[in-house]
Amino acid sequence: MSTTTASTGDGRFAGRRVLVTSADQYMGPAVTARFENAGATVIAHHGSYGPGEQDPAAVVAAAQPLDVVVVNLLVVQPLSGVADIPEDVWRSMFDGMVDPTMRFVTAALPEMIKRRSGKIIVVTSTTPLRVSRGLAAYTAARGAQNAYVRAAGAEAAPSNVQINAVAQNYVYGGYAVDALENPAMRAKVMREVPAQRIAEGWEQAELVLFLASESSNFICGQVVPFAGGWVS
Amino acid sequence: MSTTTASTGDGRFAGRRVLVTSADQYMGPAVTARFENAGATVIAHHGSYGPGEQDPAAVVAAAQPLDVVVVNLLVVQPLSGVADIPEDVWRSMFDGMVDPTMRFVTAALPEMIKRRSGKIIVVTSTTPLRVSRGLAAYTAARGAQNAYVRAAGAEAAPSNVQINAVAQNYVYGGYAVDALENPAMRAKVMREVPAQRIAEGWEQAELVLFLASESSNFICGQVVPFAGGWVS
Amino acid sequence: MSTTTASTGDGRFAGRRVLVTSADQYMGPAVTARFENAGATVIAHHGSYGPGEQDPAAVVAAAQPLDVVVVNLLVVQPLSGVADIPEDVWRSMFDGMVDPTMRFVTAALPEMIKRRSGKIIVVTSTTPLRVSRGLAAYTAARGAQNAYVRAAGAEAAPSNVQINAVAQNYVYGGYAVDALENPAMRAKVMREVPAQRIAEGWEQAELVLFLASESSNFICGQVVPFAGGWVS
Amino acid sequence: MSTTTASTGDGRFAGRRVLVTSADQYMGPAVTARFENAGATVIAHHGSYGPGEQDPAAVVAAAQPLDVVVVNLLVVQPLSGVADIPEDVWRSMFDGMVDPTMRFVTAALPEMIKRRSGKIIVVTSTTPLRVSRGLAAYTAARGAQNAYVRAAGAEAAPSNVQINAVAQNYVYGGYAVDALENPAMRAKVMREVPAQRIAEGWEQAELVLFLASESSNFICGQVVPFAGGWVS
Repeated sequence: MSTTTASTGDGRFAGRRVLVTSADQYMGPAVTARFENAGATVIAHHGSYGPGEQDPAAVVAAAQPLDVVVVNLLVVQPLSGVADIPEDVWRSMFDGMVDPTMRFVTAALPEMIKRRSGKIIVVTSTTPLRVSRGLAAYTAARGAQNAYVRAAGAEAAPSNVQINAVAQNYVYGGYAVDALENPAMRAKVMREVPAQRIAEGWEQAELVLFLASESSNFICGQVVPFAGGWVS
Repeated sequence: MSTTTASTGDGRFAGRRVLVTSADQYMGPAVTARFENAGATVIAHHGSYGPGEQDPAAVVAAAQPLDVVVVNLLVVQPLSGVADIPEDVWRSMFDGMVDPTMRFVTAALPEMIKRRSGKIIVVTSTTPLRVSRGLAAYTAARGAQNAYVRAAGAEAAPSNVQINAVAQNYVYGGYAVDALENPAMRAKVMREVPAQRIAEGWEQAELVLFLASESSNFICGQVVPFAGGWVS
Repeated sequence: MSTTTASTGDGRFAGRRVLVTSADQYMGPAVTARFENAGATVIAHHGSYGPGEQDPAAVVAAAQPLDVVVVNLLVVQPLSGVADIPEDVWRSMFDGMVDPTMRFVTAALPEMIKRRSGKIIVVTSTTPLRVSRGLAAYTAARGAQNAYVRAAGAEAAPSNVQINAVAQNYVYGGYAVDALENPAMRAKVMREVPAQRIAEGWEQAELVLFLASESSNFICGQVVPFAGGWVS
Repeated sequence: MSTTTASTGDGRFAGRRVLVTSADQYMGPAVTARFENAGATVIAHHGSYGPGEQDPAAVVAAAQPLDVVVVNLLVVQPLSGVADIPEDVWRSMFDGMVDPTMRFVTAALPEMIKRRSGKIIVVTSTTPLRVSRGLAAYTAARGAQNAYVRAAGAEAAPSNVQINAVAQNYVYGGYAVDALENPAMRAKVMREVPAQRIAEGWEQAELVLFLASESSNFICGQVVPFAGGWVS
């Protein structure tokens, strides 16, 4: 349940500047800690980016130059039947997750393309790959992000900028972490998740780190599942 | 290039009521013609369903009772680089395709669940499965629809209501039909599409008809590719 | 549990010759009944096609001319841990399912290509798409079939011959039908399969029929799931 | 075109024992060099493992104890039309790639399960995910490997042993490297592969290394594409 880092500091990201969005939420704390541990200069930006909230373009402009942007956004959907999703809940999913993703990419990409170097990692969810009941609005929004990453990743690749997504589930700090504490959810994990456990946040951060490193320059436009084998 | 029906009238849908949205656009004409040919009573509704346009709930209410709803929506994205998508273009994709999909499903589903019978087919695109350059906004919106269909389809299935999508490309009447006439596009079709041709609209309508029939009650929450083998 | 046909006879396949392999096993009886009901001349071939058994090339030669071949093959794997699969069990999966698939396709394809018309449908399984425990050998063999169908389907498509697979699960007459009768399996179906039921054989046969019809000529090289929404 | 390592030696795998199969072929040299650079003790085993060749069980027994096994196997298929694959070519694909994969896993897994620690990475191909013409036999065999990895990975995961595959294409040292030198192939890479280049062997080795590290313990039963965005 902790969010400590796995490895000792290794300096692999020394001198590199990393923006983490909503750094106080979702995978933000774990990702921030891991990049700091690797020697990066992390701009850990807090809060949300919906209408009337903070402007992604301004956030990026203030943080430049940037080597890495981690687009980490979460709006929780109250469980509801598919025919009973309130319009404002539906809207909040796209306002808070989908539109800001596009705006962060649009803001960060031109400088990266100019430098022919840059990494964008979007933290999404497995829901579009394997359905979780009661979350149709959330699933639709995560599906928009995943599809956008595929398209944007393909277009940025020729400029040596890599855009990928991590589609996660069953991670502490991730979606519905409280639910994960209850016995029914734990029984589900034991039965359905091959790893039979919930991952620590730092483990997910390790995958983000790999996708942010020069070691993965040939990986682009991918949606990489991170869910203990729950999707394959 | 024609949109005539393949088969002689067969009466398979006699007595069944089918709503086709945007029946004057995209796959609307071909789907309408095919259902009429099969003896259905088709409510062919014209126009669009964005903000300030027609209200899906009202359209469904006026058309009830409904056995089948074909959610057929298209907003064309002007080709643009991923960092150059205008905000209003981005918005129009979700306004015109994603939100109305949810609203048509939300409006039609309760009666179908009550009757324990009903079919919803959403006509989408292959773009979230295999990228086409310059269409990142369109791809994101189609990805939202595909993910929503998976989630909604799983939730509606226990009530014997089947929701599926047809993810299409390379169909006359479909996206970028004019482009399909130009030599570069035809060369691409010959090189990349295993079927080495563009499908007639009625062929796509046959798949919609199959998914709308009682013969496919065990198929639900699926995104079925229809693209001559271009995606697999 | 019955295998009766859904529709009254419709003559849609009158004058067409259909070979069904292992017609006494797996989906053979349901598929045979459905094609006969549709007016086809069905060559319902019984038995198996492993080493020392019947030769696919001879079966096809004796049945020509053929409009449709349904490659329906099943070898049941005794449940075993992944490190405990006996060599002969492993071998039997490939001998009885994978190699005969290639041989039936190889035997039937040249005449179909010459006529520029023909349909091959391979009945496979969802196991390569979503894992079922204890079946690693079976899964590997079904994965080989699915991949082969994609490759063969792409190559046959320019000649107007369509090769597709139906990846099925939770169908009476299918894999582990007895297991489906037991309470634990039924609980699993209610919990995990959106349709919350097991399909009749004729329902699966309807999908095979659709893929064997002229209505689906633009669908090729696809692995179509048929599992009540269990995979998507 | 070189196979030098990207990073300076980092000692991350000091004290760990890694078996690389067919270390003189395919990705073997790059993977071996990268693990050595990371401080591992690499047992670089040469040759092939078909009938009458070397026995995987004996190779594993001689190399124990093992922390990591990289199942790296390649049999090249002469390009041939789908109806013209010679039986011996077909057989050689399964003999040389599929069966040895199962045998290496079967040999290595019990000790790993006993220790509750171990990593197996199978180097496969994108061909089952996106078709390359003329390679139906190769594709079928790679599809069997990918499906087997999903099944085996799910079963090994509860014992904290991770089995994954890297599905690669467009890598120097990989399949058809000579073809990659010719102008038509390079035009195809520029047109179809988003990264618009061919990867160095060491880049692919970095992904193998990540999957072999403790940082990726929650990733299991996955087939990770490595192809410059060519599949997504």
